[in-house]
Amino acid sequence: MHRILLRTVVFDFPGDVHDAGRDFWATALDAGVRRGRTHAEYHALEHPAAVGPVLVQHLGAGPSRVHVDVESDDTGAEVSRLVAAGATVVERFDDWTVPADPGGLPFCVVPARLDEDFARDARTVGG
Amino acid sequence: MHRILLRTVVFDFPGDVHDAGRDFWATALDAGVRRGRTHAEYHALEHPAAVGPVLVQHLGAGPSRVHVDVESDDTGAEVSRLVAAGATVVERFDDWTVPADPGGLPFCVVPARLDEDFARDARTVGG
Repeated sequence: MHRILLRTVVFDFPGDVHDAGRDFWATALDAGVRRGRTHAEYHALEHPAAVGPVLVQHLGAGPSRVHVDVESDDTGAEVSRLVAAGATVVERFDDWTVPADPGGLPFCVVPARLDEDFARDARTVGG
Repeated sequence: MHRILLRTVVFDFPGDVHDAGRDFWATALDAGVRRGRTHAEYHALEHPAAVGPVLVQHLGAGPSRVHVDVESDDTGAEVSRLVAAGATVVERFDDWTVPADPGGLPFCVVPARLDEDFARDARTVGG
């Protein structure tokens, strides 16, 4: 058994519209913008008018899209559970995995940030 | 001045993959499924493992995508503000409006559900 939580929305933009898309969502959500240190292709919106974190990703190639991150305290078990539920693994990175749902939508399974919000809101699954 | 909050994520699926996509996300987020009364093309996931509401929409035509809803207590003022920030209005319905961001991603501006969470988390903008 492990815990999961969907809380991050990511706007993915190819290079030609990335800056305009990033700056639009910062204005739309009354947020600041902070570039990722480890992953410079990501910008985090700072204090967005949203219930969870909002990121903007610079894509090497288009089209624009939106994806969600599913956080887990056991990403391996979570990916296995989702594959059993019908997901297909598209790509694996050191830190996270990109499955696609049965409709073809990619999303990410990422290590949980084990903060107070995760402790309060995460769900136990896989039992 | 008015208030806004991004809290709903919507998975949009064309007919051939809609049921599989809906059922996958219900399993993934350990949620029930409830069909919309007023808008039968929507299903709400009940008590999803997520920080905000999650909906699944049956699209008349593809491709699959994800969009977000921006809630506001003054949707007219909010759409005007977002258009000034670079959005384009794609479609207007009685209750809500579909703008697209500068990267071409459609999203919805919808009337806020004026509950305790909105009161606590919404942001005042347009001042």
